[in-house]
Amino acid sequence: MIEDKNQQRTQLSDLGEFGLIDHLTKNFKIKQKSTIKGVGDDAAVLEFNKKKLVVTTDLLIEGVHFDLSYVPLKHLGYKAVVVNLSDVYAMNAIATQVTVSIAVSNRFPLEALEDLYAGIETAANIYNIDIVGGDTTSSTTGLLISVTAIGEVEDDNEVYRNGAKPNDLLVVTGDLGAAYMGLQILEREKEVYKVNPNNQPDLEPYSYLMERQLKPEARKDIIKLLKDLEVKPTSMIDISDGLSSEIIHLCKQSNVGCDLYESKIPLDPQVISTCEEFNIDSTTVALNGGEDYELLFTISQADFPKIKANPNFTVIGFIKEANDGIDLVTRAETKIPIKAQGWKSIND
Amino acid sequence: MIEDKNQQRTQLSDLGEFGLIDHLTKNFKIKQKSTIKGVGDDAAVLEFNKKKLVVTTDLLIEGVHFDLSYVPLKHLGYKAVVVNLSDVYAMNAIATQVTVSIAVSNRFPLEALEDLYAGIETAANIYNIDIVGGDTTSSTTGLLISVTAIGEVEDDNEVYRNGAKPNDLLVVTGDLGAAYMGLQILEREKEVYKVNPNNQPDLEPYSYLMERQLKPEARKDIIKLLKDLEVKPTSMIDISDGLSSEIIHLCKQSNVGCDLYESKIPLDPQVISTCEEFNIDSTTVALNGGEDYELLFTISQADFPKIKANPNFTVIGFIKEANDGIDLVTRAETKIPIKAQGWKSIND
Repeated sequence: MIEDKNQQRTQLSDLGEFGLIDHLTKNFKIKQKSTIKGVGDDAAVLEFNKKKLVVTTDLLIEGVHFDLSYVPLKHLGYKAVVVNLSDVYAMNAIATQVTVSIAVSNRFPLEALEDLYAGIETAANIYNIDIVGGDTTSSTTGLLISVTAIGEVEDDNEVYRNGAKPNDLLVVTGDLGAAYMGLQILEREKEVYKVNPNNQPDLEPYSYLMERQLKPEARKDIIKLLKDLEVKPTSMIDISDGLSSEIIHLCKQSNVGCDLYESKIPLDPQVISTCEEFNIDSTTVALNGGEDYELLFTISQADFPKIKANPNFTVIGFIKEANDGIDLVTRAETKIPIKAQGWKSIND
Repeated sequence: MIEDKNQQRTQLSDLGEFGLIDHLTKNFKIKQKSTIKGVGDDAAVLEFNKKKLVVTTDLLIEGVHFDLSYVPLKHLGYKAVVVNLSDVYAMNAIATQVTVSIAVSNRFPLEALEDLYAGIETAANIYNIDIVGGDTTSSTTGLLISVTAIGEVEDDNEVYRNGAKPNDLLVVTGDLGAAYMGLQILEREKEVYKVNPNNQPDLEPYSYLMERQLKPEARKDIIKLLKDLEVKPTSMIDISDGLSSEIIHLCKQSNVGCDLYESKIPLDPQVISTCEEFNIDSTTVALNGGEDYELLFTISQADFPKIKANPNFTVIGFIKEANDGIDLVTRAETKIPIKAQGWKSIND
């Protein structure tokens, strides 16, 4: 919300025909042994011996998935990559390559795209993935970003959504609802800014919420941890749309039911206090907020001792037979059927 | 340009949250052995043993890459897949899977998306590829389609853009310029339609041009043919932006120069006659028109006997040292340096 009036602006048209791509991709370095050829030909070339590959893709559109009035472009680039990697990790796989396509309208100067790509590169470096291709084109309106991520998984280690069995435990990583509350804070501050552009917002009390919204991380660490603990989940999904949607996906695809315990849902103290401030129910936020990018998975009860002391994991529910339903067990011990919300992608 | 006022219209919102994806993807059948899991999880899972993979992606945007006033949605879906496959074949690889993401505004009813997907499915069937994932989201304005294609290539058979050597021959498949002239016809008819909506255009004399513009094919057949002929090109690229751009790409990446013979450029009779009708130079059309999706490659002279009698191939030039330049040798035997035009993607 703080505009730098002296920002350098280079028109995209100044770069000439092929200059933009060269300019934006010149620093990409290959990190993965499986990347034989990255950017610069008709297609990237990858090589994997005796491994399965996973592929996932996401489309992010200005005005639908992000609002540039409060999302810095560098963060947007970072997030665009991370949300795709999250889908790879949700297969119990390790992400290795991405392709990134962008469409931009003339209102974006080169420096804006550089910021976006700086975020993309930062994510690639932190998650140790190669950027192996993409497409850059003009758009008639805003900015859009399409990312496809590729990952690898050894032997039969991949975990689908359809393997949950009755009596399995439902486990979630991290905590939920913070990204959604971060968005509420940003939207509130945007309204304040419209009224008084000189007002400097104090976002310090909401630092965790801001970070979860603007710079989410994918749980690569959990895939390593599960391997170290010798736990192979029976089913797994990442939480992009909200806990309730994801539980329904796991249950429907596994043909099981579930009891989710409201009292067990992990919430950060900032989520609880900000929900009080906004007078909204924190369970509703955790169930429907989305953008947490935590992993939700089921394990056989035999694996419980391996995860129970670990602060990364919270057991939040119990898998039942399909005809027993998908229910929230409230703090008052009543059962309420869980309903999904949101718009869904094919692989998400 | 002929509108059916009785078209059935189902609002996308009527389908419920996850209904759209299920509806659009329910008929996708897995054809490739390497597709372990397609649509329906966080990511697709692929398995390739001892093979290299190629990956390429393209973004098509309404108002930039297509105009729905004269492109039927089914054709658009078909073309969106085919242009990506073309990049896979340009690596001397065989396409195996695609992911397809679309963003649509509310103005599109379900039936429009069904048409689009019908085209996508038709391409998948004809080219024997699996649709293994994607993302479907709303857009604030028009339609956009992002396709990522994956292919496989055995041993060291992949062909890059950077392998051309002095004395190699420059070869092109099929003929050039027809897709561009098809677009000129469509744009002319659109203007006529604006003035008189009852006018029924007679497109029969331009049937080949129409087909090349609206329903281009990727040269999968050429990859098989080259294999059968035991010809491995030294470099290869597909012609998406126009012959001149692609020649420059090959030459720059291979660090060579080239003489392109104007008199050798293959043109369909309809291109020649329509260029006369529009009073434009057919060589300019072939050089800069684009969207031909033919393959442009170089071969060592030793391989010339293998291809010379084949009607699929035309030798159009000769590779020189880099400092001899990249030139068009005109019919009048003068040399003109070739310049690129157009907007370029990372892998295209």
